[in-house]
Amino acid sequence: MSFLTIGTVAFDDIETPLGKSGRIVGGSASFIGLCASYFLPNVNLVAVVGDDFPDDMLKEYARRGINTEGVQIIKGEKSFYWSGKYHNNMNSRDTLITDLNVLANFDPIIPDSYQDCDFLLLGNLTPAIQLQVLNRLQKRPKFIAMDTMNLWMNIAMDDLLQVLQKVDMLIVNDEEARQLTGEHSLVKAAQKALRMGPKHLIIKKGEHGALLFSEGNMFYAPALPLEDVYDPTGAGDTFAGGFMAYIAKQQDVSFGTMKRAVIVGSAMASFTVEKFGVQRLLELDDTQIQNRIKEFEELVRF
Amino acid sequence: MSFLTIGTVAFDDIETPLGKSGRIVGGSASFIGLCASYFLPNVNLVAVVGDDFPDDMLKEYARRGINTEGVQIIKGEKSFYWSGKYHNNMNSRDTLITDLNVLANFDPIIPDSYQDCDFLLLGNLTPAIQLQVLNRLQKRPKFIAMDTMNLWMNIAMDDLLQVLQKVDMLIVNDEEARQLTGEHSLVKAAQKALRMGPKHLIIKKGEHGALLFSEGNMFYAPALPLEDVYDPTGAGDTFAGGFMAYIAKQQDVSFGTMKRAVIVGSAMASFTVEKFGVQRLLELDDTQIQNRIKEFEELVRF
Repeated sequence: MSFLTIGTVAFDDIETPLGKSGRIVGGSASFIGLCASYFLPNVNLVAVVGDDFPDDMLKEYARRGINTEGVQIIKGEKSFYWSGKYHNNMNSRDTLITDLNVLANFDPIIPDSYQDCDFLLLGNLTPAIQLQVLNRLQKRPKFIAMDTMNLWMNIAMDDLLQVLQKVDMLIVNDEEARQLTGEHSLVKAAQKALRMGPKHLIIKKGEHGALLFSEGNMFYAPALPLEDVYDPTGAGDTFAGGFMAYIAKQQDVSFGTMKRAVIVGSAMASFTVEKFGVQRLLELDDTQIQNRIKEFEELVRF
Repeated sequence: MSFLTIGTVAFDDIETPLGKSGRIVGGSASFIGLCASYFLPNVNLVAVVGDDFPDDMLKEYARRGINTEGVQIIKGEKSFYWSGKYHNNMNSRDTLITDLNVLANFDPIIPDSYQDCDFLLLGNLTPAIQLQVLNRLQKRPKFIAMDTMNLWMNIAMDDLLQVLQKVDMLIVNDEEARQLTGEHSLVKAAQKALRMGPKHLIIKKGEHGALLFSEGNMFYAPALPLEDVYDPTGAGDTFAGGFMAYIAKQQDVSFGTMKRAVIVGSAMASFTVEKFGVQRLLELDDTQIQNRIKEFEELVRF
């Protein structure tokens, strides 16, 4: 088994009703990689940063088995920067600043050592870059999942539809599923999305859990009700990273394994929201993770 | 075991994005009673109607084992009438007309034959009427659950707090739980609500399922994802009726039985939303109900 992911490694600056983060490390690939590193000995990362990105953090990733050979460091340029402010209910947010910086000309390079890839997670990037990654892999991975967002549906729908034809699974949130398909009912949205290419679909509903649709089967995993959500940023990426890492570890994509993978992804995401950015993902241990998964089981078993 | 409920038996006039109902039979006690009648041989109803309420419908209730001895028919007056319009997402609605009519002077009478009551569900009425019912029962029921709504928190909070002291379980939706406690987090809201009197709490989250809190335990049952929600009116009442009927049938209020009762309530509510008003609750059979409960089990088991 080998797991490859592409996404952003970047800076975030976040304000929530509970506090301000200042400039911290974030980016989809940071959340995915750190989350997956608890389940897999190696995680191959493709990303791009500027020379402002802390070398210590890349070393920390490497120490955790995250291969950063595919992380390009562009001299004289800055890393992707996103700043946002969450509203009182934490369910919606305003983007304050998006500085693409190195992302504007991102040309993803797949190191030779990454080529033998079984499980691929295409983090949320322009569909054109996601396509490039697929084209640059000499062998099709056994299982490809992708994330995307509303912005690409607005400005790059043709490319997005192309990527959808090439993947096994789409992982989106409820609003993205609705925009992609034009259907309000998530059941109808799922039916339409599954006719666009992927055989499997996850619709993330934030604090309301996640729905898995797979070849006529449906599974609904709740989210763990929390006293406080400190910062929702990265919860969706953490979920996707945990899901993919679990099926990659099991080397199995049966519905039963996928259901457990949804629980694992949900458990991991419930950690991420407890502190700003990737902080919680840097301080977990296996016992905490197993206990959280057990909490989930107790929450839904009857 | 004997089950008593008080609530409204009334007329609704509903507009949803999928159609208009015209004047149809509704009211919390109609949904609770009809739902419970699938699980219990007898359901004792306390309510009030005007002489405009169709006698045929009361006969239909009686035919189904719903005792209408406690349903007062006020000559020369009109039944409670509510008219509302749902927005596109079906999660919010505007009340167009509320004609209290007979409800304005409702003085609930408990027939002698209702006095030996084990399970009581106080449907959503003014807290003063809920208190009256409690005072008029010669013996405290083994288990009392209550519904309420935002309006009573605005205009009758003192009375509401008194009722809360006297019940075993509160059943409200997420917005009601938040208003009652001033807490946005449902976990914190639950902690506060459980210090107001009841030992058990259900927070209904509509299409996102329901949370059960009971003496340190938590259970999260999803709602069945549906292709279409035709009319959400009465879903919460149906849920409460199914929940109470199940624990009354089992004569058990352990956490394990309550968890199954939440699943049963959710399954029943998923029928109600398929057509206008009580229509679906008039045409079910045991096989349909058992199959729907099985669907729920398959949806959440992993």
